[in-house]
Amino acid sequence: RINPDRLWDSLMEMAKIGPGVAGGNNRQTLTDADGEGRHLFKRWCDAAGLETGIDKMGTMFARRDGTDPDALPVYVGSHLDTQPTGGKYDGVLGVLGGLEVIRTLNDLGLKTKHPIVVTNWTNEEGARFAPAMLASGVFAGVHTLDYAYSRKDPDGKSFGDELKRIGWLGDEEVGARKMHAYFEYHIEQGPILEAENKQIGVVTHGQGLWWLEFTLTGKEAHTGSTPMNMRVNAGLAMARIFEMVQKVAMENQPGAVGGVGQVKFSPNSRNVLPGTVVFTVDIRSPEQAKLDRMRAAIETEAARIAKELGVGCSVEAVGHFDPVTFDPTLVARVRAAAEKLGYSHMNIISGAGHDACWTARVAPSTMVMCPCVDGLSHNEAEDISKEWAAAGCDVLFHAVAETAEI
Amino acid sequence: RINPDRLWDSLMEMAKIGPGVAGGNNRQTLTDADGEGRHLFKRWCDAAGLETGIDKMGTMFARRDGTDPDALPVYVGSHLDTQPTGGKYDGVLGVLGGLEVIRTLNDLGLKTKHPIVVTNWTNEEGARFAPAMLASGVFAGVHTLDYAYSRKDPDGKSFGDELKRIGWLGDEEVGARKMHAYFEYHIEQGPILEAENKQIGVVTHGQGLWWLEFTLTGKEAHTGSTPMNMRVNAGLAMARIFEMVQKVAMENQPGAVGGVGQVKFSPNSRNVLPGTVVFTVDIRSPEQAKLDRMRAAIETEAARIAKELGVGCSVEAVGHFDPVTFDPTLVARVRAAAEKLGYSHMNIISGAGHDACWTARVAPSTMVMCPCVDGLSHNEAEDISKEWAAAGCDVLFHAVAETAEI
Ligand SMILES: NC(=O)NCCC(=O)O
Ligand SMILES: NC(=O)NCCC(=O)O
Repeated sequence: RINPDRLWDSLMEMAKIGPGVAGGNNRQTLTDADGEGRHLFKRWCDAAGLETGIDKMGTMFARRDGTDPDALPVYVGSHLDTQPTGGKYDGVLGVLGGLEVIRTLNDLGLKTKHPIVVTNWTNEEGARFAPAMLASGVFAGVHTLDYAYSRKDPDGKSFGDELKRIGWLGDEEVGARKMHAYFEYHIEQGPILEAENKQIGVVTHGQGLWWLEFTLTGKEAHTGSTPMNMRVNAGLAMARIFEMVQKVAMENQPGAVGGVGQVKFSPNSRNVLPGTVVFTVDIRSPEQAKLDRMRAAIETEAARIAKELGVGCSVEAVGHFDPVTFDPTLVARVRAAAEKLGYSHMNIISGAGHDACWTARVAPSTMVMCPCVDGLSHNEAEDISKEWAAAGCDVLFHAVAETAEI
Repeated sequence: RINPDRLWDSLMEMAKIGPGVAGGNNRQTLTDADGEGRHLFKRWCDAAGLETGIDKMGTMFARRDGTDPDALPVYVGSHLDTQPTGGKYDGVLGVLGGLEVIRTLNDLGLKTKHPIVVTNWTNEEGARFAPAMLASGVFAGVHTLDYAYSRKDPDGKSFGDELKRIGWLGDEEVGARKMHAYFEYHIEQGPILEAENKQIGVVTHGQGLWWLEFTLTGKEAHTGSTPMNMRVNAGLAMARIFEMVQKVAMENQPGAVGGVGQVKFSPNSRNVLPGTVVFTVDIRSPEQAKLDRMRAAIETEAARIAKELGVGCSVEAVGHFDPVTFDPTLVARVRAAAEKLGYSHMNIISGAGHDACWTARVAPSTMVMCPCVDGLSHNEAEDISKEWAAAGCDVLFHAVAETAEI
């Protein structure tokens, strides 16, 4: 079994970097705080005797050698970046859980045939630069490096420039590494495991996603002296599209979600009808056909709503991944480990996207989940217990050790 | 008649200060650009031989003496501040139109019994600091000076600090000046005069207004892993309240408007359901009873909508004025001047709020309006012709001269 206190202390230590405003973290990707977090992680990897590599997306790889020089490594990781008002565990648990697997192997003096590589993927959250899971997406060949470098944050700064600025631009070609397998340990970020009173989520599938960014163009005008029938009201179109997205998601229950996280009015003045409204729609489903149907319905309906109001409407897909089926052999191995260790478990579909969803395209991949209080995530109040963290890490340890062939 | 070219040249000269991004202006109140605009206006007043005073709200008064030392002055003015994406004429025409009245009197060597004071009110727009017409509101005793100083812009800077910073904090007590009458010349900011092909709007009334700022409190949560039925969705509540405001405004046609100009999501991240949504509702009507009915309906319905979604809802009135009836004698004088000068004219209700709406509480007040292209205002594309500007200024000149007793 892993060392619960050491894992927890490392989580708490990392949480000191990029503190939030309400007990959580704001360690957004490629900020100074992200750089600081990377340095701390690297110091820990050095202390554990690992060899660190960095690729051109800034993704960090920390390797513990195996006994067979020809065996491909087993990768285990997640991300250290957070939402602007994020929790202490989302992503971090997977990276430091991977490190704890290594530390435990070191403690026990155990060697594995395959090397094990702990990984910190850059920009998993996608909060600062859309889309999410950007570095693992380039790794899996879904995005080009140029596309990734050109992504801009709300201040207009590019991913490429910011990666250079914080000093974590590496020289490895992205995706050059070949994986024997990829494991990712993560908090559920939803309410199911807690409600079902299970310690371990055996992740069989991941939902697919579309992020649609709508740009609505109305006519900037005075709120007081512009008669109702002369308005070209981009704000009203946004409100109607918002309600329609809700309706589409509800009609597709169960097995679908839809919502809006980001809205921007211009000029955003109390007595000006907005000239432009930009907002993002996030829809997800584990079923490909349903996901595509929802997207089509939303785009058609949005165009109709905007047209009715005389509002211009364009839509750009700024994020996407298909539903994922994780590798059945690895999934079975996670389930067997939970069973052997005596932890209660159940099959679960990941509601969130994860780097494992991209690695699944290039290597056998799967995930381990632990519950989180009230299913809360992307919230500074995100919470787990030391025991929950340890149980999932134990399962990770056994599944990884078996895959790496102790 | 006034000098159309001089008036137009002054308008164009002022428009160079605080240029916008699309041919208009961004000269928001108490910015450096506002300070620069004030200096230019002061230089012109000095050149016209006027004596300048500044009150503790930063409002500028430029006085041309009358022949009777006991006669109260006739005031004529408007504002030099603009929206963030504002036009070149909204407000500016009234201040520089007032200056043109003086310049014309000077040209003609005409003396008046009453002094004439050209006025530039601080923060008419209310874009940076709510409410609008802040300085004239303090002048009329509607707000206290402390209230005004404590108003904050979106960056948290206070009105009081910013007034000091730009160097336009005067020493006159606000409201100490007594007015014989107040005239304000303004573009219509709506489509009526152009549609009716009239050169002059004789402004008999002004609409009343409520600005309601809603704060909706939901539960910040992951857009992907939070099931639909577990969401406490402040964004959805905003969309429904927005649609309801539209419905209330439509049900009160004609003679009412309602809309939303400002929306702010927190944390405003694509994959986070917002924890907080703040947005402002702007409702107006020339009928007091209708205005109050609309406000009550909106507050009741908003509370119901929020409750249904489990969302917290608080509302603050951040701006208000009652419908105004302008002084019948002055209104008749404006109409007679238009008639005498051979300009086509019609009675009109001001759709926007103006400083004249506040001065009407402490002095006989009225307004003169000219058309604007497509009724467009609070838009950088706001436009008028030199001839339209001159016609209104001619009417202003005659009405002011008569009131000041040539
Ligand atoms: N795990 C996680 O929150 N990833 C960010 C991408 C997503 O929104 O699912
Ligand atoms: N004239 C004008 O636009 N004033 C600002 C206050 C309002 O919104 O009516």
